[in-house]
Amino acid sequence: RHGETEAEDMVGVVTGLAWTEVGGEILTIESVMVPGKGQVKLTGKLGDVMQESASAALSYVRSRASHFGIVPSVFEKRDLHVHVPEGATPKDGPSAGVAMATSLISVMTGIPIRRDVAMTGEITLRGRVLEIGGLKEKLLAALRAGVKTVFIPKDNEKDLAEVPANVRDHLEIVPVSHVDQVIDRALTRVPEPIEWDEASDAVVVGAAAIAGTSQAARVKPKVKH
Amino acid sequence: RHGETEAEDMVGVVTGLAWTEVGGEILTIESVMVPGKGQVKLTGKLGDVMQESASAALSYVRSRASHFGIVPSVFEKRDLHVHVPEGATPKDGPSAGVAMATSLISVMTGIPIRRDVAMTGEITLRGRVLEIGGLKEKLLAALRAGVKTVFIPKDNEKDLAEVPANVRDHLEIVPVSHVDQVIDRALTRVPEPIEWDEASDAVVVGAAAIAGTSQAARVKPKVKH
Amino acid sequence: RHGETEAEDMVGVVTGLAWTEVGGEILTIESVMVPGKGQVKLTGKLGDVMQESASAALSYVRSRASHFGIVPSVFEKRDLHVHVPEGATPKDGPSAGVAMATSLISVMTGIPIRRDVAMTGEITLRGRVLEIGGLKEKLLAALRAGVKTVFIPKDNEKDLAEVPANVRDHLEIVPVSHVDQVIDRALTRVPEPIEWDEASDAVVVGAAAIAGTSQAARVKPKVKH
Amino acid sequence: RHGETEAEDMVGVVTGLAWTEVGGEILTIESVMVPGKGQVKLTGKLGDVMQESASAALSYVRSRASHFGIVPSVFEKRDLHVHVPEGATPKDGPSAGVAMATSLISVMTGIPIRRDVAMTGEITLRGRVLEIGGLKEKLLAALRAGVKTVFIPKDNEKDLAEVPANVRDHLEIVPVSHVDQVIDRALTRVPEPIEWDEASDAVVVGAAAIAGTSQAARVKPKVKH
Amino acid sequence: RHGETEAEDMVGVVTGLAWTEVGGEILTIESVMVPGKGQVKLTGKLGDVMQESASAALSYVRSRASHFGIVPSVFEKRDLHVHVPEGATPKDGPSAGVAMATSLISVMTGIPIRRDVAMTGEITLRGRVLEIGGLKEKLLAALRAGVKTVFIPKDNEKDLAEVPANVRDHLEIVPVSHVDQVIDRALTRVPEPIEWDEASDAVVVGAAAIAGTSQAARVKPKVKH
Amino acid sequence: RHGETEAEDMVGVVTGLAWTEVGGEILTIESVMVPGKGQVKLTGKLGDVMQESASAALSYVRSRASHFGIVPSVFEKRDLHVHVPEGATPKDGPSAGVAMATSLISVMTGIPIRRDVAMTGEITLRGRVLEIGGLKEKLLAALRAGVKTVFIPKDNEKDLAEVPANVRDHLEIVPVSHVDQVIDRALTRVPEPIEWDEASDAVVVGAAAIAGTSQAARVKPKVKH
Ligand SMILES: [Ca+2]
Ligand SMILES: [Ca+2]
Ligand SMILES: [Ca+2]
Ligand SMILES: [Ca+2]
Ligand SMILES: [Ca+2]
Ligand SMILES: [Ca+2]
Ligand SMILES: [Ca+2]
Ligand SMILES: [Ca+2]
Ligand SMILES: [Ca+2]
Ligand SMILES: [Ca+2]
Ligand SMILES: [Ca+2]
Ligand SMILES: [Ca+2]
Repeated sequence: RHGETEAEDMVGVVTGLAWTEVGGEILTIESVMVPGKGQVKLTGKLGDVMQESASAALSYVRSRASHFGIVPSVFEKRDLHVHVPEGATPKDGPSAGVAMATSLISVMTGIPIRRDVAMTGEITLRGRVLEIGGLKEKLLAALRAGVKTVFIPKDNEKDLAEVPANVRDHLEIVPVSHVDQVIDRALTRVPEPIEWDEASDAVVVGAAAIAGTSQAARVKPKVKH
Repeated sequence: RHGETEAEDMVGVVTGLAWTEVGGEILTIESVMVPGKGQVKLTGKLGDVMQESASAALSYVRSRASHFGIVPSVFEKRDLHVHVPEGATPKDGPSAGVAMATSLISVMTGIPIRRDVAMTGEITLRGRVLEIGGLKEKLLAALRAGVKTVFIPKDNEKDLAEVPANVRDHLEIVPVSHVDQVIDRALTRVPEPIEWDEASDAVVVGAAAIAGTSQAARVKPKVKH
Repeated sequence: RHGETEAEDMVGVVTGLAWTEVGGEILTIESVMVPGKGQVKLTGKLGDVMQESASAALSYVRSRASHFGIVPSVFEKRDLHVHVPEGATPKDGPSAGVAMATSLISVMTGIPIRRDVAMTGEITLRGRVLEIGGLKEKLLAALRAGVKTVFIPKDNEKDLAEVPANVRDHLEIVPVSHVDQVIDRALTRVPEPIEWDEASDAVVVGAAAIAGTSQAARVKPKVKH
Repeated sequence: RHGETEAEDMVGVVTGLAWTEVGGEILTIESVMVPGKGQVKLTGKLGDVMQESASAALSYVRSRASHFGIVPSVFEKRDLHVHVPEGATPKDGPSAGVAMATSLISVMTGIPIRRDVAMTGEITLRGRVLEIGGLKEKLLAALRAGVKTVFIPKDNEKDLAEVPANVRDHLEIVPVSHVDQVIDRALTRVPEPIEWDEASDAVVVGAAAIAGTSQAARVKPKVKH
Repeated sequence: RHGETEAEDMVGVVTGLAWTEVGGEILTIESVMVPGKGQVKLTGKLGDVMQESASAALSYVRSRASHFGIVPSVFEKRDLHVHVPEGATPKDGPSAGVAMATSLISVMTGIPIRRDVAMTGEITLRGRVLEIGGLKEKLLAALRAGVKTVFIPKDNEKDLAEVPANVRDHLEIVPVSHVDQVIDRALTRVPEPIEWDEASDAVVVGAAAIAGTSQAARVKPKVKH
Repeated sequence: RHGETEAEDMVGVVTGLAWTEVGGEILTIESVMVPGKGQVKLTGKLGDVMQESASAALSYVRSRASHFGIVPSVFEKRDLHVHVPEGATPKDGPSAGVAMATSLISVMTGIPIRRDVAMTGEITLRGRVLEIGGLKEKLLAALRAGVKTVFIPKDNEKDLAEVPANVRDHLEIVPVSHVDQVIDRALTRVPEPIEWDEASDAVVVGAAAIAGTSQAARVKPKVKH
């Protein structure tokens, strides 16, 4: 069943797209959040560039936390773990950055990711989406895996001409220049911003003006299997 | 006596299955939990992939702690040590992930693992069980060691055709897609979920609505030898 | 769109100039500041010299914090992340030091950087700007990217003779010997000094004699995209 | 005098047995415990496997502390140092595990180790003793050094046939399957278990129901020279 | 302008002397001190020996802090950064030890270093000055850079015979056996000792019997540029 | 003057003996102790074995602190730095262990070391002195440097036959089997034991039943130069 998309929408689980010498491939990215002290773990035989990419994704999420309805203090009270199976396969490159940001926002808000979407794109600290390589191969892999919608970097629109027409016909291809455009559509609902007061560590204005502890509970992943 | 299963059901001790150039082999995995500060030690000449695999297993257990009746705060008040004898033999690969999760859940709940079971399978952060290599060799090794029941990844069912009929006849082979299916059958009793309140660090609903400290005592390994 | 300057003035985003075997190039440098404990992260496949350069830039900013209106205690209550996309491209050398200092001062004061400026120069702990290599190639790249003003080290004035006249005509080239000369002109407004009292961790004299917490709020990056 | 056993029974000093290309050899293992914060130091040019072996020995002792009369909280209030002279000679392998556990239990209980015993055997986290190599050479070295009693792994009994009769005649050879069998005989007296209450960090039932601090004093090594 | 001495006396900035295959060279050493937790950073592509040299210089200053009027507790409340531009040039060797001690004492007392002095010499933990290599080349570089006074190790006096007469005529060459002889003459005024009471963390006897906090303020570097 | 003994008895400075391919050599070992948090720094281009040797020396001193009149809690309130000039010369081997222990005890008690003694010998955690190599060359170097008394390992007495008669005539050669025999004679006075109570961190019985803080003051090195 690996190499296919999920059977239902899940929290923290997102479909990325990899490009190797032998073609494109589905890359599942998983995050979990547990009570802790702000430690971040990255596993799955990830190369340095991919680890830095996860780090940039996390800093983007942290710097925009309240925009996504995440109480900033949660970063000190939880540990995060991002894992990319299959554990024996080396992976590298910056193109999973957008997927990692999406996985992190999902796990920290508790909002599931649509199981029929995939995405590729380097992320910057400001959330901009940068060009990637191997677009054609990645779209082919997405199609094979049953993906319906693929988010690609706006700077890669020029490469769509090389993509076979039937691939473009069967996939909804969404060029984006900023990761927030992905968040708005890939999650099953749009995260609601909060206003957060640093001094009191309390939410001032938001969906329900929830307090820190309740928020912590609310973002607890609702794993299904 | 090494290379055989245990003489009685033990807490934290589980039989994994390894696959080397010279065939399959029994791999004992041991965990202990001691008073501490949340440190995790992995020994037994484990390669990077096997260490990451243990890390994924642990994050799965942490993210589902209350489901297994484990008070989450125990992760900050205990140290864990996972060891794979024989210490001079290098070991690597992700296929011991399911066994590591089982060993950790056993040691943290105090529930022994059935001594006549063995298991193989990569684990993800969500507890899914992924395909492994060397199924035939591993089942042969399990049989030689006196194992009765072997848990294998559902994605490896296709490989059973290559396994000699007499091996299949003498082993109960259980394909699983999620580690919880292993926990339900490999432990001598099924762990009972609790409801845990983060603010008070207390168990709200559970077997006996036990408090943090008592729980800590309850999960103290009851080693026998 | 990468390889060009930004569409609007941004906080923490600055245009540096790199010099490789195949010519000059635009180097975007981004910083974000998030609630934390004073940790600093540097990503973007940066070599040792470039990392030390960022470290020198940060120590300059820390040692002159109140001069730039930054409450010194903010260094213990925030984490900083400096990233240089594109993440897969190795980068090294000390010549981005001035740009890193500028990016850090911008993110810590909340004052945007003019989007039509670029800069190159090694920085010392005292803020002095030291000579760099590849001036001609860097100026050509700046011109191509639509930059209007380029800050260069005063010690590189001698190299301007090698730069084609049309490049010098279309760029405002500003030789500087100290990074403060860059700050005064590259930010959209000049940072206002404060007087800070260590014992009370309070601002004594400044724009509004703001207290630590409010200041922390004030310097929150106002990201746009 | 090196290469011989000690002149009197000592706390924390135990005779292990090494096996090199040029034959067997005496290996002295020393431990000290000092006021501290739970740090563990391992010196004597020890290879990775030998360090992991010490780590497994320590986890066994920690997980069974009260069984040996050791107040568990002592692990946070003391530092341990295990050293294997001669410092310039590289040492590796798992076969000193049983000796390391014995040295640690001696230093933490203050009970001396009989100076006329030697031991070899890999240790697991559960205290089981696993097979080692070079039995014949090790027993010869023990005899030369004046050892009277040697503990060997039960799984090595099969190798005794290769050992010359006069060696077997002059040594008491004790096959063991668990390290507790060694502790019972190698220490000058058997450690007495205590019952320890985690909440109050106090001994509930034991030799003298001693409190934490007194225990700490009691286990202070009584070095002689 | 690099390769020359400073335009005015500065705090924490000192001229060292390096010796490479192509001759002697000026080496600027800069230190800054900022509010912090006692961390020390060393940058400028420094080799291991040069880093250890800085470490020895710092330990000398720490062990003699009150002699130089430095409140010892400042080492826990400040971070120090020593940087040696140019950042891309590898530097190594112990001969900058005396210069590093001088830079550190200057930055911690707030007393500027005379801009027309240079110095070379290995430092020990007791402040003794040990022999260095390349004396002739270093003196030539000092002369070229406009230095007036050079401190050299007393053990190098024997090498002065090899130095051209005109170099010796135009430089004041001061052989020293202890770093305090350098401090007395290279700083613009002699640091005044204090008597410091560990229990109260207060100055008992000194210039003005200043308290810890005020002292901290007093030693704030007064950078000029 | 380097390569000779000191001009007066100093605290923490001791003469060791090294043995290289080109003969024996004097090795000065220096220690300082400063207010801190129990950190230990080792510098002077020391190899792994020499660093482990310093570590064993320190553990011996820690485990016997009150025997030497050192309040054990001082190990948490002070930092120690052991440095072996000349900083550019690589040094290794275990034979400086006895000298390192002597230097540490001197700096922690404030008792100077006799300037006319030298010493060589590996140290164990129990303070035993083990055999070293190059005895003849080391004694020759000691004689050349003006040393009067040399402590050597008892196990090296057998090597004295190879030492020229005139060397043995002009040196007092003292074979020792334990480092305490060195301490009793190499320091200018014998350290007086104290009895120390862990609970109150106070000295119960001793020279003057001094309290922790005063002791801390008393052991402040009285450096002279
Ligand atoms: Ca695959
Ligand atoms: Ca393309
Ligand atoms: Ca085996
Ligand atoms: Ca297969
Ligand atoms: Ca590019
Ligand atoms: Ca040039
Ligand atoms: Ca030997
Ligand atoms: Ca055998
Ligand atoms: Ca230069
Ligand atoms: Ca010379
Ligand atoms: Ca020398
Ligand atoms: Ca010899």
